[in-house]
Amino acid sequence: MVESPQSQNALSPDELHEAWAVLSADERLEGFRLLPPAVADDFFLGLTAREQAELILSLPQGERRTWVRLLPPDDLADLVQAVEPEQVDAILSQLDDASRREVNVLLAYSEDDAGGLMNPRFARVRPDMSIDEAIGYLRKQAREKVETVYYAYVLDAEQRLQGVLSLRQLFQAAPDKRVADVMQRDVITVAENTDQEAVSRTFSEHSFMAMPVVDEQRRMKGIVTVDDIVDVVQEEATEDIQKVGGMEALDAPYFDVGFLAMLKKRAGWLMVLFLGEMLTATAMGYFEHEIARAVVLSLFIPLIISSGGNSGSQATTLIIRSLALSEMRLKDWWRVARRELSTGLALGAVLGVVGFTRVMVWQALFHSYGDHAFLIGMTVGVSLVGVVMFGTLSGSMLPFILRRVGFDPASASAPFVATLVDVSGLVIYFTAASLFLRGTLL
Amino acid sequence: MVESPQSQNALSPDELHEAWAVLSADERLEGFRLLPPAVADDFFLGLTAREQAELILSLPQGERRTWVRLLPPDDLADLVQAVEPEQVDAILSQLDDASRREVNVLLAYSEDDAGGLMNPRFARVRPDMSIDEAIGYLRKQAREKVETVYYAYVLDAEQRLQGVLSLRQLFQAAPDKRVADVMQRDVITVAENTDQEAVSRTFSEHSFMAMPVVDEQRRMKGIVTVDDIVDVVQEEATEDIQKVGGMEALDAPYFDVGFLAMLKKRAGWLMVLFLGEMLTATAMGYFEHEIARAVVLSLFIPLIISSGGNSGSQATTLIIRSLALSEMRLKDWWRVARRELSTGLALGAVLGVVGFTRVMVWQALFHSYGDHAFLIGMTVGVSLVGVVMFGTLSGSMLPFILRRVGFDPASASAPFVATLVDVSGLVIYFTAASLFLRGTLL
Repeated sequence: MVESPQSQNALSPDELHEAWAVLSADERLEGFRLLPPAVADDFFLGLTAREQAELILSLPQGERRTWVRLLPPDDLADLVQAVEPEQVDAILSQLDDASRREVNVLLAYSEDDAGGLMNPRFARVRPDMSIDEAIGYLRKQAREKVETVYYAYVLDAEQRLQGVLSLRQLFQAAPDKRVADVMQRDVITVAENTDQEAVSRTFSEHSFMAMPVVDEQRRMKGIVTVDDIVDVVQEEATEDIQKVGGMEALDAPYFDVGFLAMLKKRAGWLMVLFLGEMLTATAMGYFEHEIARAVVLSLFIPLIISSGGNSGSQATTLIIRSLALSEMRLKDWWRVARRELSTGLALGAVLGVVGFTRVMVWQALFHSYGDHAFLIGMTVGVSLVGVVMFGTLSGSMLPFILRRVGFDPASASAPFVATLVDVSGLVIYFTAASLFLRGTLL
Repeated sequence: MVESPQSQNALSPDELHEAWAVLSADERLEGFRLLPPAVADDFFLGLTAREQAELILSLPQGERRTWVRLLPPDDLADLVQAVEPEQVDAILSQLDDASRREVNVLLAYSEDDAGGLMNPRFARVRPDMSIDEAIGYLRKQAREKVETVYYAYVLDAEQRLQGVLSLRQLFQAAPDKRVADVMQRDVITVAENTDQEAVSRTFSEHSFMAMPVVDEQRRMKGIVTVDDIVDVVQEEATEDIQKVGGMEALDAPYFDVGFLAMLKKRAGWLMVLFLGEMLTATAMGYFEHEIARAVVLSLFIPLIISSGGNSGSQATTLIIRSLALSEMRLKDWWRVARRELSTGLALGAVLGVVGFTRVMVWQALFHSYGDHAFLIGMTVGVSLVGVVMFGTLSGSMLPFILRRVGFDPASASAPFVATLVDVSGLVIYFTAASLFLRGTLL
């Protein structure tokens, strides 16, 4: 059987999408060119802004225009922000004057604001139109360049937003009514400079498909659509997860970050944690004599301090996420503190009992801990209660404190809390030891 | 001045929404009843299914119907799943027979599947309709009960999906063309039992506003809209963050989880980690003689093992998130392993140098570490390189291994990796110590 080289190499769009991250620039170009024209558009629109930019720049000059012009202005603005400054012209020169102006207006907004997310092309009608006129006018706009027509926005002559009509309301209304009679006047809007996280919260509170962006005079500037919000939500969640893991947010997929850039994002926090953790060496120095007299005490140090770190890590992640989702606010700290104190006591009691039992069982089986096993068991058990309570409480309060002083609560990462608790855990442990073992081992 | 009691107590919808979590059931009901009728609908639709259920059940019988009937079938199905089994009838009895049947069909799907997310009411047209007939038919459907009309789905007589038309395409087409001539035949669909995470990935690859759900015979069952996907993405991210923090996913807002339920979600993993961490006490037992001969060694134990935990925590969170976002797949493990090995070496070298310097500086300033400070410094520095490399490598590989054997990679939580690294970190440290200090301190 003879196959054409095309059918041998061509990947389906889904296969190509899956393999994209691991393909070289040449392979990407080749795979893309082998896609049937009918699906290539959809495939291209599904790429991230960075991937679109790389693909376009790997095409010869003559082939770029089609793809650049396929993108709506908001996506073009993202794409321009993903390329090196010297390549911006290579992209923008492919556009007609009107579109280039639209993109330049969008570029003036910060990428993380509502203005940076919005599409300046939206469906508009006048308040004095009849319903039938409005539907006809929308059909005309859809034929030209408005791509999203879920809502028709009612603007006066000064472009100020007067009301909104969903397509459903428009279709439901009697054809001879006027727009002003049926429109909803109470429109929920976002300001141009509203942060994207706040925009996504407004979306999830109201389940709209799109929201209008207005300036201070309530002049309408564009719409943010919910499909862009999905990406915002993913991005913000990724940032939070990476911060919770104890590093700077990467802002790009793993394989797209260079070796040195990756090192920088990780070494910074690792060094801060390391310097903090050095205090444990200092703290241990204070207890050197106790350790020398009762080496057995040192055996439980990793167990005790890590239990504090683990319970603190649970508490801090819980609170960081609840704050991010607005399930709680700053002024709820006292309610959280009381609750975490009792949770910490219960969790500490459970671990304390198991820790005490571990010491007594090993003593019965192997005589591991000499004459004072009971007192050592008490030291371990009581320290665990204290350390877990302290870990839970400080893990839950740290995100509130960070937000209060203006930092991102997600910086109260699991390793950060663990480091904090390690130092104080040592103090708690050796204090308990001196209470129980003074006069016997110490 | 005399104010009516109403104006004194009434909160704005936004204020009420913000305060909702901390209000009692009675306060919620009161605040809700004081809302102006025009905004109460929107406010109600913005509540979560659980909050809607609680509110409806706190209303007297006679007032429930309006609110139950305001909800589309997919939201009703969520609401029914949020109430106790014995209260389902109190909700469903408010519906007309047709809607109750729709909700019951949806309830047969698993909550986390496309079928459980979908709305069975969608806009449909026939392939042989003219464009003008299709628009007229859509207007009729919008007047009845279809609420989302972003796409018109083209179904044959057996309800099999033949194609799709966006409203824009419909509006753009010449009025006398037939639907079959302009529709797009290549429709991306999801199956009824597709998992919601996979559905959200398909959405983010294609930026659609809605996607059709079909059965095995390609009969169309409903649509999933992107606004529901925002919630899915938030939910999945919350689950991942909580697992990364070392606990079971809560599945509900912090304040909605009872004290005992919260304890259970946290105590399970904390106990697993504690039992794992007990191995450190066993490991330390093996090195008890070394510690007794050189107590100074014990001072650096928390510093060394926590550095391994921190670097492992960074690596594991990075990989967990990349796997969740499909930025990498199982077969990329080797590429990741090579990269993390060099990253770990670089990070370990940085910390190792700082650790060695710390020992030498303290020695110069305070003579803290006796005659063999240089060798102790070497032990600390070299162990840090080894521990950080081991932490980075095992933190990055564990999520791959978990996925390979069928578990959720997010279970490779930061505390889990830290525990793993603590035990092996002790072995690495004492091995380095015996290499450098044999014949002098040991």
